Amino acid sequence: MSRLRFRISISLDGYVAGPDQSVQNPLGIGGERLHHWATALETWRRAHGVEGGEVNASTAVMEESLTNIGATVMGRNMFGGHPGGWSRDRPWNGWWGDDPPFHHPVFVLTHHPRPPLILGDTRFHFVTDGIRAALDQARRAAGGRDVALAGGAQAARQYLAEGWVDEMELHLAPVLLGNGERLFEQLGDDLHGLSLVRTVATPAVVHLKFERRDGARGPLR
Amino acid sequence: MSRLRFRISISLDGYVAGPDQSVQNPLGIGGERLHHWATALETWRRAHGVEGGEVNASTAVMEESLTNIGATVMGRNMFGGHPGGWSRDRPWNGWWGDDPPFHHPVFVLTHHPRPPLILGDTRFHFVTDGIRAALDQARRAAGGRDVALAGGAQAARQYLAEGWVDEMELHLAPVLLGNGERLFEQLGDDLHGLSLVRTVATPAVVHLKFERRDGARGPLR
Repeated sequence: MSRLRFRISISLDGYVAGPDQSVQNPLGIGGERLHHWATALETWRRAHGVEGGEVNASTAVMEESLTNIGATVMGRNMFGGHPGGWSRDRPWNGWWGDDPPFHHPVFVLTHHPRPPLILGDTRFHFVTDGIRAALDQARRAAGGRDVALAGGAQAARQYLAEGWVDEMELHLAPVLLGNGERLFEQLGDDLHGLSLVRTVATPAVVHLKFERRDGARGPLR
Repeated sequence: MSRLRFRISISLDGYVAGPDQSVQNPLGIGGERLHHWATALETWRRAHGVEGGEVNASTAVMEESLTNIGATVMGRNMFGGHPGGWSRDRPWNGWWGDDPPFHHPVFVLTHHPRPPLILGDTRFHFVTDGIRAALDQARRAAGGRDVALAGGAQAARQYLAEGWVDEMELHLAPVLLGNGERLFEQLGDDLHGLSLVRTVATPAVVHLKFERRDGARGPLR
């Protein structure tokens, strides 16, 4: 069974991005502090062509999160927003650069139709008919493997609210951002079937893994 | 050295109390879900005269939090607000009942002068000249032992902002409240010298212990 697996880094005060996100600063002011635990890892650095790095308790968590993923779904802002808009004359290739780290099909939720975009060995598909369609397409593309939900907050909230997320891993960075975009808004007072199943901690991050309980599945499956 | 130790239960979305706190519902709507991990413990139940309960990884954390405390500081709302106001004719004894679980002096931050109140073996002092005065008085009363900062959010934020908190333990309940009172507001983007030093997890709660780093002490000590 192909599962929808959501992972995101979040601050102690609940922010998944800092304020004033822009092309120059896609994580928002201070947002890179959410990811220090990851960028310090040898696993992350190797995947991004950088030498060195640490091996610690987060290594197994990151490697697990990269395993058995056949496709990714993400929101428009996660792909890279709309600087200047998209047109045939001025294509905007997001902020993932020429060699995105996905290496599998990525489905971007958007209201703006656009042909697929190939960067390195990653093909971005732009889906305009909603979160269910994007998930269906991603599941087909994944060929039996799981689908990663990469964020951002707005896209994640929609899937969480439907009860379609099978696994959620919060990488809780023990810092305050003070401002920015919160993950848990407009979701009411329940986790839509998810419960805590595993915690892994280092001084730099606490990984909180949630899974859907039996009998608490959303209407999709 | 007497240390100021702050502990509080907090939801995944950052709330330390639910909405609509009242005398009938001092934790706010849904707020009791923050404390299920504690009220399930044999240690907690014995301290409150209730039989039974669990022994698990949270037991040692709770016992540690009760050890070497000589006095407590709390905000007005934590004591019990002002239903009907305080007067000689209509004294209000808060919502801790006839036998509060402190068993040491408690210093309540308030703007309303009032003589000390004795309930069971707990003496409540009402401090009207600010958070520094309350901490000084609590330290003297503690006789070399530590001072507990019991909350609520508003009082805690004031001590945190001054950099006077030496230890902070967040009992992170893996639930959403969706609304209520947030702890981390108006504190900006830093933890004022505190950093994560220990994590203890059960399926019901994740205990995140922060301590002041050497060289990062507030101006008080």
